[in-house]
Amino acid sequence: MDLFEAIATRRSTRRFLPDPVPRELLEKIVEAGRLAPSGGNNQSTRFIVIQDRAVLADLARIAEGEFARMEAGHDTYKSLRNSIEASKRGGYVFHYDAPALIVTANKKGYGNALADCACALENMMLAANALDLGSCWINQLRWLTDHAPIEEYLRRLGMAEDEWVCGALAVGYGAGGAPVRAPLAHPGNPVVWR
Amino acid sequence: MDLFEAIATRRSTRRFLPDPVPRELLEKIVEAGRLAPSGGNNQSTRFIVIQDRAVLADLARIAEGEFARMEAGHDTYKSLRNSIEASKRGGYVFHYDAPALIVTANKKGYGNALADCACALENMMLAANALDLGSCWINQLRWLTDHAPIEEYLRRLGMAEDEWVCGALAVGYGAGGAPVRAPLAHPGNPVVWR
Repeated sequence: MDLFEAIATRRSTRRFLPDPVPRELLEKIVEAGRLAPSGGNNQSTRFIVIQDRAVLADLARIAEGEFARMEAGHDTYKSLRNSIEASKRGGYVFHYDAPALIVTANKKGYGNALADCACALENMMLAANALDLGSCWINQLRWLTDHAPIEEYLRRLGMAEDEWVCGALAVGYGAGGAPVRAPLAHPGNPVVWR
Repeated sequence: MDLFEAIATRRSTRRFLPDPVPRELLEKIVEAGRLAPSGGNNQSTRFIVIQDRAVLADLARIAEGEFARMEAGHDTYKSLRNSIEASKRGGYVFHYDAPALIVTANKKGYGNALADCACALENMMLAANALDLGSCWINQLRWLTDHAPIEEYLRRLGMAEDEWVCGALAVGYGAGGAPVRAPLAHPGNPVVWR
């Protein structure tokens, strides 16, 4: 797919078919992420690709337990508030039951950690689109990365002691069938020319 | 250009020809940035596109003055240390004398500000590559965004009171002639499969 088409037609997908994503497509997506630039060319982003349904269920359950113990204040970010409220109600699955979740981690306290992971995640969103897959940026594990139950579970999956989560990507075939490629309106994101 | 080719062949360019970048190419690059995803679809990234050589020179001079007053400690990030030391020596131009600089700003204190701008910057790096232009992520204005002389100057350029810089992109034709498209080695960025 042409680069500009991939950029213009990417959308966030939040309803997925249960069908697994073929390993060779996930490899292409992850490789697109690995090739993203990094500050000082540090290449310190770790990719944890999770397809094991039991692991995905564990993560959803542990995250729900953590969110359910939190309280939303009047200035809590909308998505975080939604995660807290949905977890208190029960049955909250932060990764939208996607068949694959790619967690990006990077060095704790490193000033370029989030930016580097974001570039990798953007490359992976574009790659998923070009491969007719849907994807959605997932912030919940980043919000919970210093919660012991999440941190310990991710350590067992391969996250190093000196790393924390900077974002994740849910990937799968969209439940709506073929990707909708009509470009979205973007009335925001203003531009100033000097 | 094919998406995967654009991703695999993107490199950072740090030596630029003085030739201006045609406005229509800058518009394509900025539009690629505007179409990047944003948390909650907030679309609150502001793009300030600077081609005015006097403005670029002002920014370089003001930034040099700020860095020259800073001291690098033993744990100062390498690139920031370089900026400080080069500014103390004098003649430091943080934007590599590129003919165009695209500053991305977003809401102060907003949890998705940096991630949203990083996605936009990654799209713009890929777009520049596809258009045979070189680019390089620039962190210096982010590091200085709470320094009054930088903040006040950027306000005059169009950055709003409630915004700060989350990153920038130097854009121009690479001094080395046609883009080198041999993929770079990426031995880092490890992957774990679960």
